[in-house]
Amino acid sequence: MQFTQEDRVYMARAIELAKKGRYTTTPNPNVGCVLVKSGEIVGEGFHQKAGQSHAEVNAIAMAGEKAKGATAYVTLEPCSHFGLTPPCAEGLKKAGIIKVISAMVDPNPKVSGKGLAILNEAGVETAHGLLEKEAIDLNPGFLTRMKTGKPFVTCKLASSLDGKTALKNGQSKWITGSKARQDVQNLRAQNCAILTGADTVILDNAKMNVRYEELMKTEFTELNLNSDQLRQPIRIVIDSQNRLTPDLEFFKISSPIIILTTKLDKSSQWPHFVTQMLVPERDGKIDLSVALTKLASHNINNLFLEAGHTLSGKFSELDLVDQYIFYIAPKLMGDCSKGLVNLPEFTNMMQVNELTFLEVTMIGEDIRIIASPKKTN
Amino acid sequence: MQFTQEDRVYMARAIELAKKGRYTTTPNPNVGCVLVKSGEIVGEGFHQKAGQSHAEVNAIAMAGEKAKGATAYVTLEPCSHFGLTPPCAEGLKKAGIIKVISAMVDPNPKVSGKGLAILNEAGVETAHGLLEKEAIDLNPGFLTRMKTGKPFVTCKLASSLDGKTALKNGQSKWITGSKARQDVQNLRAQNCAILTGADTVILDNAKMNVRYEELMKTEFTELNLNSDQLRQPIRIVIDSQNRLTPDLEFFKISSPIIILTTKLDKSSQWPHFVTQMLVPERDGKIDLSVALTKLASHNINNLFLEAGHTLSGKFSELDLVDQYIFYIAPKLMGDCSKGLVNLPEFTNMMQVNELTFLEVTMIGEDIRIIASPKKTN
Repeated sequence: MQFTQEDRVYMARAIELAKKGRYTTTPNPNVGCVLVKSGEIVGEGFHQKAGQSHAEVNAIAMAGEKAKGATAYVTLEPCSHFGLTPPCAEGLKKAGIIKVISAMVDPNPKVSGKGLAILNEAGVETAHGLLEKEAIDLNPGFLTRMKTGKPFVTCKLASSLDGKTALKNGQSKWITGSKARQDVQNLRAQNCAILTGADTVILDNAKMNVRYEELMKTEFTELNLNSDQLRQPIRIVIDSQNRLTPDLEFFKISSPIIILTTKLDKSSQWPHFVTQMLVPERDGKIDLSVALTKLASHNINNLFLEAGHTLSGKFSELDLVDQYIFYIAPKLMGDCSKGLVNLPEFTNMMQVNELTFLEVTMIGEDIRIIASPKKTN
Repeated sequence: MQFTQEDRVYMARAIELAKKGRYTTTPNPNVGCVLVKSGEIVGEGFHQKAGQSHAEVNAIAMAGEKAKGATAYVTLEPCSHFGLTPPCAEGLKKAGIIKVISAMVDPNPKVSGKGLAILNEAGVETAHGLLEKEAIDLNPGFLTRMKTGKPFVTCKLASSLDGKTALKNGQSKWITGSKARQDVQNLRAQNCAILTGADTVILDNAKMNVRYEELMKTEFTELNLNSDQLRQPIRIVIDSQNRLTPDLEFFKISSPIIILTTKLDKSSQWPHFVTQMLVPERDGKIDLSVALTKLASHNINNLFLEAGHTLSGKFSELDLVDQYIFYIAPKLMGDCSKGLVNLPEFTNMMQVNELTFLEVTMIGEDIRIIASPKKTN
């Protein structure tokens, strides 16, 4: 399929629109739509929240009568099934759209190709594959869950330049600067859930929530969402030995919590927003791979791992990390300070965990590195 | 003093020229000169090597008769004293230059202001301060030595993302990639001397020299210097306990070596290119501060520190580092691998060594970070 430069511009706009949903659409994907008629954008829309109207519906509503005869640019193949809303393929057809260009087909087996088929049958021209890479990047979590049955796991790590996370006595406030910490808030807000270990919740008395006032210092403000519209990511904590107690700060924030455990704790009085989820054991610990599959079945697309060196190391060792985000502070803390990742002892350099750097940025006085695990073929 | 946009362009050219000397001028500073007459460059030159002609002399030679009535742009105040060559201030005057613009005055007390005075007395107009910052950056070592009586110390460190330099069993080949290692060769070649510890020379059997064939894969090639013109940096090794022996690889490369020791080793048969330098003790070790002063008095401007975690940590702890260059490889080696810098145990986050990131670049698959110690006022 040959696309024109104009096609590219409109699809790029649809991708920009899709991004506006990144704080709110979970568990749905981010989708944007642009309707163009006679070289003019007549309608635009994006999906904001599950249960609310899809991008195509919003764009058609904006276009009104002008939708008739227009071409639709959609970042994802229009849906063909009745979910919480009617199928968009039908909606586009009814609105009189004559051509639909999708950036990518739907990875969901319930939909893939069917939306295009409905349109074709109705005499609507279709094409796909325009800016596909960019469209894929819109929804790492949704696509990973559809393809692998697991969430997309981002492992966040923060350290000094010499890879240290705390002094020997445990002090760690603060290693990174305020801008980096705001950036973490922003990433938390874009993930469906945050995963941590019992140690972090107990020893650091961490809340692991998104603080609206911090978020308001980030790009989040561009979306003009108020604090009521802010969705708190689900907070997930691994507690194989049932060491958590309801009096911890973590349980003072009234938003959904999942405790992953190998044995239900029936003695504690957990608040109503806390769910215990049973996961089988493996080597005396929670089986992390099974845990991820369970979380995906609860519609968690993007999982943000913020844990200590043991749990982060375990995820890394088991190859369960899809992306790393490192914050490196301009500090040297010395060899007697605490390390970043606990890994088994390697006896050969060929065994170490290899990554690929994808992006390096200055965030305030710190450096942020985005990396992916190197795929071993 | 008001400078024009044209002035800036010519001085920027003089600075570019000065950089061409960066592999060879030691212990002299890098200097460039441009002669301009009626809006045209009539002569250009840079200083290439101590004992050879200065930038101004080269520019005048190129201009010939056209030097008469020209303006000279020089990155450093023209010298006024007889060193290995006659004073340039005199040369400029004799050549009929009518105006001299210097980027900066000379920091050398033997020269500072005197070159300009000679010119002024001869009726040559002078000005200075144009692109001064850029001119200062040409000669960190020379300026530091003139101002503080110590060399400019660059501490090079290379590690995995989690700050590790070797496996528990000592394996470390290779952490960084070939591009980063070529970059180190290029930096070695630009420094007057390389400083390391006896451990590195003994345990790694390191040569610490510049390999021409590796250098030829870097920007060095742009200068069209052949291997005969390559100056090996002086190799300096700290050996307070006289553990070094002449059979090590380090001593197989026939280029100047200085052994810093607290007690001369008179029993070993050192090759002719090895000098033992006596330095007083401090806390049972070489007094590093005194060592630096001694090295500066031997005309070492830029010192490249490539050492293990103990010596690097000591320099950092004693605040003797002017600049850090970190190479970070996309690898995780785990907490049981070996650390980057040995520092005293800190009990409060306020005590850790704070740096400022100046530059971050990708070098092949690795990241290079240039940082400076944060000045505590």
